[in-house]
Amino acid sequence: MTWIQDLAAIVEVQTSPACLELHASDVSGHEPVLPEAVAFPGSAREVAAVLGWANQRGVPVTPWGAGTSVEGNPIPRHGGISLSLQRLDRVKELRLPDRLAVVEAGVKYRALNRQLTGTGWQFAVEIGGDATIGGMIANNAAGPKAVKYGSTRAHLLGLEVALADGRLIRTGGKAWKQSCGYNLTQLFAGSEGTLGVITEATVKLTPVPAVREVVVARFSSVREALACVGAMRGLDAGAIEFLDRSYMGFLEEIAADTLFCEFHTPGHGTVAEAICRAGGASSVERAGENLWGARLRAYTASQEANPGARLLTTDTAVPLGAMAEMVEFLQAELADRGLTGYLLGHAGDGNVHVILPWRNTAEWEAVEEFHRAAVRKSLALGGTASGEHGVGMGKGEFLEPEHGAEAVAVMRSLKELFDPRGILNPGKLTAGNHEPRP
Amino acid sequence: MTWIQDLAAIVEVQTSPACLELHASDVSGHEPVLPEAVAFPGSAREVAAVLGWANQRGVPVTPWGAGTSVEGNPIPRHGGISLSLQRLDRVKELRLPDRLAVVEAGVKYRALNRQLTGTGWQFAVEIGGDATIGGMIANNAAGPKAVKYGSTRAHLLGLEVALADGRLIRTGGKAWKQSCGYNLTQLFAGSEGTLGVITEATVKLTPVPAVREVVVARFSSVREALACVGAMRGLDAGAIEFLDRSYMGFLEEIAADTLFCEFHTPGHGTVAEAICRAGGASSVERAGENLWGARLRAYTASQEANPGARLLTTDTAVPLGAMAEMVEFLQAELADRGLTGYLLGHAGDGNVHVILPWRNTAEWEAVEEFHRAAVRKSLALGGTASGEHGVGMGKGEFLEPEHGAEAVAVMRSLKELFDPRGILNPGKLTAGNHEPRP
Repeated sequence: MTWIQDLAAIVEVQTSPACLELHASDVSGHEPVLPEAVAFPGSAREVAAVLGWANQRGVPVTPWGAGTSVEGNPIPRHGGISLSLQRLDRVKELRLPDRLAVVEAGVKYRALNRQLTGTGWQFAVEIGGDATIGGMIANNAAGPKAVKYGSTRAHLLGLEVALADGRLIRTGGKAWKQSCGYNLTQLFAGSEGTLGVITEATVKLTPVPAVREVVVARFSSVREALACVGAMRGLDAGAIEFLDRSYMGFLEEIAADTLFCEFHTPGHGTVAEAICRAGGASSVERAGENLWGARLRAYTASQEANPGARLLTTDTAVPLGAMAEMVEFLQAELADRGLTGYLLGHAGDGNVHVILPWRNTAEWEAVEEFHRAAVRKSLALGGTASGEHGVGMGKGEFLEPEHGAEAVAVMRSLKELFDPRGILNPGKLTAGNHEPRP
Repeated sequence: MTWIQDLAAIVEVQTSPACLELHASDVSGHEPVLPEAVAFPGSAREVAAVLGWANQRGVPVTPWGAGTSVEGNPIPRHGGISLSLQRLDRVKELRLPDRLAVVEAGVKYRALNRQLTGTGWQFAVEIGGDATIGGMIANNAAGPKAVKYGSTRAHLLGLEVALADGRLIRTGGKAWKQSCGYNLTQLFAGSEGTLGVITEATVKLTPVPAVREVVVARFSSVREALACVGAMRGLDAGAIEFLDRSYMGFLEEIAADTLFCEFHTPGHGTVAEAICRAGGASSVERAGENLWGARLRAYTASQEANPGARLLTTDTAVPLGAMAEMVEFLQAELADRGLTGYLLGHAGDGNVHVILPWRNTAEWEAVEEFHRAAVRKSLALGGTASGEHGVGMGKGEFLEPEHGAEAVAVMRSLKELFDPRGILNPGKLTAGNHEPRP
């Protein structure tokens, strides 16, 4: 195609079938869509040049980090260019006295943390996939540690962003406190590549805790387990995770509603153990790294246990006190509907996922109907359709029910302002649509 | 005036000279400007109605919280309506199991904390003035506790905002994790009433620490004091404040560069004492509430010590490791220029204020020239012109030097989108102008 040859004059482009296929899907069950070309810019200026070029021609551009999204965020739904950030993989600065790192958007968070090993500092967001930091910012990823450290957006000091028209701007800065102008950093964070393409980030570094007391407690009911979470709120918790009996039976063949908790102040693990025992736990134990590994691999494990199936993942987050009601609702709905679904959640944050395998249209319709019921319940409780995965391809229809038509109209006007030709990750977020049925 | 009579048909309006004068200035030294009328809406709907009305007629509207700004944010620079939020003073919900409170914008943060007394929970931002929570959100106030808990924007779950055209929208929600759509909450936070008027906020509640170990250490040099701050970074610090010898001489008649620190984990105060002794402190003591009171009253005390003077307050924040260089620069500049200036800062955050009294045009020019030099130095170090006071009337000229012309162009386009007729707090933030010389 002519436009691909034109594009190749300004950036490295690949169009091999294998490369297109690799950039057609993420780890979600969303329908793959092939891009027409994959661009591999080597610098922020090249990213901006690709956008400026695509904007003039109206060619869609969908940013690609590491493809670890579970919500279809990097799937190039309208074809065009998949814009890989993988060559922007430099850690440009590690400034420990300033507690910050400057990284290009394609740096994976684990790679940054490997570079920080032994310094006593970390980038304190941890998620299941080995995502790029740019991708984590774009959909405001969170994970188990968010209960202490917040979502990715809480770790940002500044960004460099390429705009649809080819401008390259800097937002924020390198100071830990900033109140000078509109917070563009926080506007781009969580915008899922629909307002601009993040090319660089200045992120906060956090002390690695000197102590990690891990407690695993098994319960005979959700309500018991989550009542203990409420009692732990004064403790210095680094994570408070919940996996329900269906997941635990699947992971360990011990069917119990289970809390995985980690504490960073000496003695808080002991307090948590006492809370769990008094709260009716059938077993309470101290555990180590291996259990955490199991927890982080949960999504992959669900996929491996269901070969050939695709997965739908719910991502509701409710007010903290409504977590038990939400989980009990989800369990009852699964039972009523005769569905298989693995429940795991960030109990300290009110965020619960149900991972539902499906293999055909009838199963897809059934799991999607469950998903809609879950979101309706979350919204009724004052919660959200997405706590940490973003809108992506599966949550678009919930934007208006959650925020109201007028707030969504404001969001659409922002999209129109930043991307008037609609080239940036089209068909996502404010598009308000939903994955077409398979 | 006819328009005031029209306005009075939709909202309570006052035009007495005393009322106009009260709403003409804040606690800063910025030139007062009288509004033509002060509106006192009793509900969010009335706020929205006033905006819709003013937007049709092109009448300026400047929101008013408690008038505690030190940067002129609520001064109605172009006259028109001062929109007081004081009647929106209801704490609508205290939901302890959800760790949140829903407050109208005119609720003062101290009033909220009084209602929370004995519950074990707090709204964890503390500043010198008894500000409204709406005002604190609007300029992203921070204060001493921000080193642990972050600025006001870190405490938000959702907002209700009246837009310039009279629409009333809700942003965010009541879940602690949200990644569903553009983060309008964070866009309005820090926008200083120029994009919309915040009418309600859902804020996070934070556990009141069970332990407060307060350490006051005096040093013979800035560099010594701030080197100790670096060594404290692994500790559970609730505040790390710095007051230089000029301020301490003024407050206590003990001229020493002084750290005020607070720790929330038992024993961390003792560790900090050891750090300060090893770091060359001339005295180290444990102290109580009274010292904190003195710290929070610093701004008022500077005013009282200089009757008849107006105050210019700098608000630079630099990368954490550059704090000592910044403070030494400021001290040297004050000495070179023969100026009186009180230095106090949030040492754990790199944020330092110099409070400079002035009485006439010549003095104003001198302190303003110092201010410009301070901001140039901050920007050269990677810092900001404003860490926590906002742009207001005194920082507008620094927006472009800090963010670059293209990022500021993006900010201006946001202003144009949200407020095309320019009725909302005109002459502030993206206006890019500066207080006219007296």
